[in-house]
Amino acid sequence: MSQNPHIFVLGGARSGKSAFAEKLTLDQTKTSKCTYIATSQVWDEEMRVRIDLHKDRRGSEWETIEAPLALAEALTEQSQNGVPILVDCLTLWLTNLMMDERDITAECDSLIKAISTINTPIIFVSNEVGQGIVPDNKMARDFRDHAGNLHQKLAAAVDQVYFVTAGLPSKLKG
Amino acid sequence: MSQNPHIFVLGGARSGKSAFAEKLTLDQTKTSKCTYIATSQVWDEEMRVRIDLHKDRRGSEWETIEAPLALAEALTEQSQNGVPILVDCLTLWLTNLMMDERDITAECDSLIKAISTINTPIIFVSNEVGQGIVPDNKMARDFRDHAGNLHQKLAAAVDQVYFVTAGLPSKLKG
Amino acid sequence: MSQNPHIFVLGGARSGKSAFAEKLTLDQTKTSKCTYIATSQVWDEEMRVRIDLHKDRRGSEWETIEAPLALAEALTEQSQNGVPILVDCLTLWLTNLMMDERDITAECDSLIKAISTINTPIIFVSNEVGQGIVPDNKMARDFRDHAGNLHQKLAAAVDQVYFVTAGLPSKLKG
Repeated sequence: MSQNPHIFVLGGARSGKSAFAEKLTLDQTKTSKCTYIATSQVWDEEMRVRIDLHKDRRGSEWETIEAPLALAEALTEQSQNGVPILVDCLTLWLTNLMMDERDITAECDSLIKAISTINTPIIFVSNEVGQGIVPDNKMARDFRDHAGNLHQKLAAAVDQVYFVTAGLPSKLKG
Repeated sequence: MSQNPHIFVLGGARSGKSAFAEKLTLDQTKTSKCTYIATSQVWDEEMRVRIDLHKDRRGSEWETIEAPLALAEALTEQSQNGVPILVDCLTLWLTNLMMDERDITAECDSLIKAISTINTPIIFVSNEVGQGIVPDNKMARDFRDHAGNLHQKLAAAVDQVYFVTAGLPSKLKG
Repeated sequence: MSQNPHIFVLGGARSGKSAFAEKLTLDQTKTSKCTYIATSQVWDEEMRVRIDLHKDRRGSEWETIEAPLALAEALTEQSQNGVPILVDCLTLWLTNLMMDERDITAECDSLIKAISTINTPIIFVSNEVGQGIVPDNKMARDFRDHAGNLHQKLAAAVDQVYFVTAGLPSKLKG
């Protein structure tokens, strides 16, 4: 196992994937410090309040950075600190990229390339969204395709992959 | 392994989870008797006919109890008989609670508390509903959140957890 | 393990199941030849172009046969050639059967019966569609039921079953 592993935690909605990923990240720290990269977009004051509540819940080990779009850049910059980084979550990042009409494939490839040069632990969280019925609307189908493509690329690139179901992690790789 | 295990069987629609759970329940009986707690709400005569057909299919080992809402109470009462209990299914129970505008978190916590005091085998069946695209309507999203939260709590509380795919059970815990 | 295994590869949308199944099929060939049975219906010129592109991508090992409805017959006929057969995918076949108002249960039973008499490697690909929220419309619910029922029957009938997540296969049987 790599000393500074890159780990991908995938799971359904409310599967307990974020709590498991937080634990994995804390396990990697040597200094009791961790970096939390939030991909959520802050749309209004209500969301700001919710995000601040989440920050408080995570406690003093965590420094929170917001990166709704420029995720590769944020990872490269934060990795200079040498502390483990948690990215939560990639499906939200994909949503932001789609809303901003970015070239999704290019952005995903840049992300994969960026993490290949980073030598600190990174734990990625993402939502499995492809195991239900085919959605009616095209944007949802496109989103599902983008998510599936990114998950495959990321799973191939990282050291470990977990799938979380009902709070229980199953190791798929590593 | 516990002598009177509490087992949670999770799976998608038409995954074969109920048939597997019935088998698990029958495996636990010492008297050839089992109790089936149905959470389905009987809305009309058509549904009554369907439920009666299901009862006949299950055969003479099974006594069927209906508990669309008061599941914790039914479990506590039925456990006095000392025979294995199958609860099918929790997602239907959650639907009934939502329709009845109950406090879902409180009801789920009561269920978890109730089963911690029961020393007969219980097998729970529930539907995985969180691995598709985010639903458009708020009630479906709320339902998905409630189901995920309950599944996490139950998986933590029971002795064994299985996930069933295409009729094939994978053990996630125990 | 059977010398001429029947293998079922199940996975969500964009899970990498087709690429994995292609690899499994190529692994089975002794002559460098494989047969690809496409269940896609050709509706228009645009689709014809897409399908031709797919054929080119797969390369010269593959002979492509189209069987949108008569899958059991195509399998029986193609198996005479003695080369491994890839069927991609069963959910599309079910869609075609529903559009054509066939008796789905009878068609699925005929397929299972047909493959029981075939002694060449067959690799089946299908989509897991039952792990999201219950769909609003009845046709989607029926489709989900048909898919789940077929997956259970096929998983019981074949030698090996894989579930693919983010490009990573987990063996469920065999």
